[in-house]
Amino acid sequence: MELAPLIPLDGAIAVLDQTRLPFARATLTLSDLEACARAIETMEVRGAPLIGATAAFGVAIAMRADASDAGLQHALTRLGRTRPTAVNLHWALARMAAKLHAIAPDARANTAWAEALAVHTEDIAANRAMGDHGAALLTELASGLGRPLRVMTHCNAGALATCGWGTALAPIYVAHTKGLPVEVWVSETRPRNQGLLTAWELAEGGVPHTLIADNAAGLLMRQGLVDVVITGADRIAANGDTANKVGTYLKALAAREHGVPFFIAAPTSTVDAACPDGDSIPIEARSADEVCVLNGLDKTGEAAQLRIFDGPCANPAFDVTPAGLIAGILTERGRFDADRITEALA
Amino acid sequence: MELAPLIPLDGAIAVLDQTRLPFARATLTLSDLEACARAIETMEVRGAPLIGATAAFGVAIAMRADASDAGLQHALTRLGRTRPTAVNLHWALARMAAKLHAIAPDARANTAWAEALAVHTEDIAANRAMGDHGAALLTELASGLGRPLRVMTHCNAGALATCGWGTALAPIYVAHTKGLPVEVWVSETRPRNQGLLTAWELAEGGVPHTLIADNAAGLLMRQGLVDVVITGADRIAANGDTANKVGTYLKALAAREHGVPFFIAAPTSTVDAACPDGDSIPIEARSADEVCVLNGLDKTGEAAQLRIFDGPCANPAFDVTPAGLIAGILTERGRFDADRITEALA
Repeated sequence: MELAPLIPLDGAIAVLDQTRLPFARATLTLSDLEACARAIETMEVRGAPLIGATAAFGVAIAMRADASDAGLQHALTRLGRTRPTAVNLHWALARMAAKLHAIAPDARANTAWAEALAVHTEDIAANRAMGDHGAALLTELASGLGRPLRVMTHCNAGALATCGWGTALAPIYVAHTKGLPVEVWVSETRPRNQGLLTAWELAEGGVPHTLIADNAAGLLMRQGLVDVVITGADRIAANGDTANKVGTYLKALAAREHGVPFFIAAPTSTVDAACPDGDSIPIEARSADEVCVLNGLDKTGEAAQLRIFDGPCANPAFDVTPAGLIAGILTERGRFDADRITEALA
Repeated sequence: MELAPLIPLDGAIAVLDQTRLPFARATLTLSDLEACARAIETMEVRGAPLIGATAAFGVAIAMRADASDAGLQHALTRLGRTRPTAVNLHWALARMAAKLHAIAPDARANTAWAEALAVHTEDIAANRAMGDHGAALLTELASGLGRPLRVMTHCNAGALATCGWGTALAPIYVAHTKGLPVEVWVSETRPRNQGLLTAWELAEGGVPHTLIADNAAGLLMRQGLVDVVITGADRIAANGDTANKVGTYLKALAAREHGVPFFIAAPTSTVDAACPDGDSIPIEARSADEVCVLNGLDKTGEAAQLRIFDGPCANPAFDVTPAGLIAGILTERGRFDADRITEALA
């Protein structure tokens, strides 16, 4: 996968504007703290691992302007309140803080940049390792099928959601590269339609896929058309309960009902050992406009927006899938039972 | 509810074009067989009971042009192949056929029109009766709550889906009219967004409601924010398995998981005693364009369309909820256990 949603420049980063994909391809250059924070808030940059990396670079960029203790604290606070659910954000900020608090202000700019680059590089390596572990799992599941393995995913947990390869899509890309026939059911993922990003990057990677409305997941499982479900995660509690994009939980319930194994793929930076269970994970409520205003192409083929609703609306962005519904969690360190996920941190 | 989606005229019917609602209000006059059949196929007219009534009028309109045996057979065949899942269509056609086969061709035009009017009138009365039975149920469920009853619905099973009052919404309208505080979670219902029709008619009726993405249903139930789920039905098999708009099944699974009672509201014309179970119900596959092209308002406030996807796509329009997940079925004859629904026909 050569898709690079974040490219480190000299004292800035270039990111793909994911609010405009796949309808328009625009690159944003983020060169100050506020631009990094806003890109996360508005979902120009999205996906738990990519949010973490962007936050790390946000701190590094801030250190070039003001590396004082106050400047460091301001950067950590500003970035820390951008989005509440994905824990990779806090993981990355804690990592930057630990490194930078320990050294003198005048050494911070260079150290911060090197640490952000390390977060970026390690994310790509972790995802590739997750892809290897996951591809082995997919190969097991495909054994004896005599037809392509049918994988369902939700939201976008692909290269676009990370620094490269993706989390839930990494096993698919690796398996596809190794010649395992795989077909992907891509759930649209209303309200923000991140499924369209997934379809777009699967098409770029040459992986066969079919878009469905989120509502179709139960029927397809009942019809025996789904062999395995893999999604990403925004936060995994110590007991294995997992927050991910809203709608994940409904798929997990249907998967259990039909004996379809349901897996999470996430780097260990998504595990929040301090969070005891799913009820302790904050669920972000986002703007009603995300439900009411849609991106697409108008009849001339130009990128455009459409308003579909103007009344009262609720927009919780995540839901929690209890550990008991999860067949296993794929990390860069291998596959773990959900209720033993903290062992991945040891 | 004064909303009348089908008004009988002199030898024709006027219907609201539901492909353009709620963004534009347009009335179509259907004055020949083909127009009636196409209106059903394209979903200008939609909702199982309303499809049945439109088909009855379609036969009546056809009889004014050609009341021969061949003309009758042609009308029944043409209308019968418009949509496969909703059984009310076949129920209405069988009713018209029984009445018209028994009489001489020259008496058919008047008799057919009178019978179609009877289908129309009886549908409104059945829905009002369903509303009374259902309102009693909602009053029971609200007892002692000390706050408004929170009802979740899916798709549009309101006045717009029938000749008046609706099926799943009839209990809500009757309860609201009687002063019971009710709040409705309106599921968007991708891909066709019939939830927007539901929100529109609830707003017209002054019933408090909140639109949500279909994906949010599981989270809201887990958070204890849903007291009861009521949906309509397109076909109820003899064993109580029920086909309804795709996505219904996921809500029923989540409802069971959280102890939320899940009810179906449908006239007895929706019961197909000849169909043994859900696996025998044909599931309509509709055009990918329904997933890929959306209706709404452009930035000037004009009704417009937006294309959101252009790749491979699957669009099953219904799913099946097994009888075991259904707390009861509300009909015009009262409330029945799902697995004893054929008793409603006795």
